[in-house]
Amino acid sequence: MTEVSIEAVKEFFIDLQERIVGTFEELDGSATFLRESHESPNGGFAQPRVLTDGAVFEKAAVQFSYSVGDRLPPAATERLPSLTNKPFQATAISVIVHPRNPKVPTTHLNLRMFLVDAQEETWFFGGGFDLTPYIPFEDDIKFWHEQAREVCRNDDHYLELKQNCDQYFYLPHRGETRGVGGIFFDDFNNGEFIDCFKFVQAIGERFLNAYSTIVNRRAHLEWTSEEEEWMLLRRGRYAEFNLAIDRGTKYGMQSGRRIESVLASLPPRVNWRYRHELLVSEKLANLTSKLQPGIDWLGIVDNSVDKS
Amino acid sequence: MTEVSIEAVKEFFIDLQERIVGTFEELDGSATFLRESHESPNGGFAQPRVLTDGAVFEKAAVQFSYSVGDRLPPAATERLPSLTNKPFQATAISVIVHPRNPKVPTTHLNLRMFLVDAQEETWFFGGGFDLTPYIPFEDDIKFWHEQAREVCRNDDHYLELKQNCDQYFYLPHRGETRGVGGIFFDDFNNGEFIDCFKFVQAIGERFLNAYSTIVNRRAHLEWTSEEEEWMLLRRGRYAEFNLAIDRGTKYGMQSGRRIESVLASLPPRVNWRYRHELLVSEKLANLTSKLQPGIDWLGIVDNSVDKS
Repeated sequence: MTEVSIEAVKEFFIDLQERIVGTFEELDGSATFLRESHESPNGGFAQPRVLTDGAVFEKAAVQFSYSVGDRLPPAATERLPSLTNKPFQATAISVIVHPRNPKVPTTHLNLRMFLVDAQEETWFFGGGFDLTPYIPFEDDIKFWHEQAREVCRNDDHYLELKQNCDQYFYLPHRGETRGVGGIFFDDFNNGEFIDCFKFVQAIGERFLNAYSTIVNRRAHLEWTSEEEEWMLLRRGRYAEFNLAIDRGTKYGMQSGRRIESVLASLPPRVNWRYRHELLVSEKLANLTSKLQPGIDWLGIVDNSVDKS
Repeated sequence: MTEVSIEAVKEFFIDLQERIVGTFEELDGSATFLRESHESPNGGFAQPRVLTDGAVFEKAAVQFSYSVGDRLPPAATERLPSLTNKPFQATAISVIVHPRNPKVPTTHLNLRMFLVDAQEETWFFGGGFDLTPYIPFEDDIKFWHEQAREVCRNDDHYLELKQNCDQYFYLPHRGETRGVGGIFFDDFNNGEFIDCFKFVQAIGERFLNAYSTIVNRRAHLEWTSEEEEWMLLRRGRYAEFNLAIDRGTKYGMQSGRRIESVLASLPPRVNWRYRHELLVSEKLANLTSKLQPGIDWLGIVDNSVDKS
């Protein structure tokens, strides 16, 4: 398999989806995913898997899609504008988890591949994973970034993808990142297809392992109603990002895609309270000091070659 | 007072705000509004009034603002683009109410005046009011539209402003209007200032009276937990509209205005449930048949001159 194969990527995504769903059902121990399939007339198909009202996961969406289109939307690529409006195939897996326990962080994974039928057939990958804690544990944040570092080639590669993540998941109106980040990349096709695909596979595997580890560490901890209220308020930030800022959600809403799939990422319960800082304790509000771009979680910035 | 006077409009808005706040506190009987003032260095000032966790109102925001700027933002006018980037003054009152009882509808009022220092001093008004029921009572919807009709000059004027409202408060990704509408107008400066100002005053007075009447009719009714869940889900649509579609919110988020004021319109508690249609009864879901543009609530379309 040294040739470019979207079939192989589809197979991997479908298998990864099945394993994530299985692992999450085991972790939850109570609820199961609703399993659906939707086919498009042109050969595309989607497999949403959504869990609602679990013991550990209040909502988890693990979605696979394969689509075939006549015109690559401009939103699909920034670096390769010459490809827009060409026929294409795309396949993606996306995961969003809203846990019940505010000590378990929310997480998000997205992996996608595009194959574009241009003068020369062109492919590229995109995706990444990020973490959004409510009650932050520094151990978990460092562990998460260690995992991110390990899937990358070296420190500089990690720092570049981490910076992408901090920049993309940023709420300017709040002056905050959405969470404590991770990695994020777009228009990725450096080198051989097989090496890029291996990188994407490694991200998927690492994600499942890393997030499961954190859930196992924290899901059994008690929480207070004040902490839960804090989580519901912080979920408001998540909804603000997804509805007002996220390019993928915007594109999904405007393009007439199945709206339940597009908005499956929204938190199950959200509170918006006017001037909530009047009500939550400083200890919890200290989370926001961790929600800034460029925090050197692994203490490696000084070791890296590129300090620009 | 036959001259153009933004001072007179400010005074009216401040007085109207005080009366709305007083009436709502009386209707609620339990909670009071947090009263704040914020001054800008350039002479502008804002008076947010927000009530939280009342017996009748779960959240109500009644905000006054007066602002002075060097450059009129493009978002301020569509019909008069030659005025953008000119020095201006603006004053506005906005009201959003999220009731506790799903039988009481959410409502929204906005009234604003711009005074632009162009070659010729130019003024215009904008605003309107609209209603968003959860459990719809046809009597209330008709009553609301009767009030809207009565502030307008005639049937055609009402139908024009109602159509604006249906068009503006529309969620394309849901194929639904935000609620059952009302009136909406922009760049309004037809005829004498004093007549336009009287129209705006009439809208403010009528709004307060109409909404109070509906609250008095419904706030004492019992409701079920199923009806409450339905309201929380429908509030999701409200958040979707405000965060993803509303021009005013978008402008406020991007322009660096005080974010707590900009987002005070968001519902206090919101649920997003994947495929909620699997869970709510048909009776409740029938609401959506009323959320379509162009419903002739008053049966007057055939009587109107302009049927285009």
